[in-house]
Amino acid sequence: MQVIVNISLKEGVLDPQGRAISHSLNDLGFNEVINVKVGKQILLEIDENDPARLRQRVARMCETLLSNTVIEDYWIEIPDEQ
Amino acid sequence: MQVIVNISLKEGVLDPQGRAISHSLNDLGFNEVINVKVGKQILLEIDENDPARLRQRVARMCETLLSNTVIEDYWIEIPDEQ
Repeated sequence: MQVIVNISLKEGVLDPQGRAISHSLNDLGFNEVINVKVGKQILLEIDENDPARLRQRVARMCETLLSNTVIEDYWIEIPDEQ
Repeated sequence: MQVIVNISLKEGVLDPQGRAISHSLNDLGFNEVINVKVGKQILLEIDENDPARLRQRVARMCETLLSNTVIEDYWIEIPDEQ
């Protein structure tokens, strides 16, 4: 099954990359841009068909390796889950 | 308005970061992981209320700065769009 994990910096954590992009877009004439935040999107293909167990396993992967839970939030999407 | 831009490597482009994550997860005992792809998720806050024009402007930002269209695909989500 396909799983999407979105990882973004927690509210209040400095995001220099987002800031740089925001400034660059303004400089390029996109003056309507107010704020930019950059996160990661990780697409996983996993050999598991039970959505509940899948979600639990992927949460453990996030806590162990994929995200730095001190400064990052993650959320898990399972597109095939009804 | 909030806009989300998801950027991922095109099919067939080598993804060493995804590969490294996949191997690490397997090594940690997550043997159900078959494949991992890593992309970016950019959240933009934009001073524009017309969804059609917003989408057009953000597409231009993607082509100009946000994505490398030679090796990356992007897709635009507008959560508030009905």
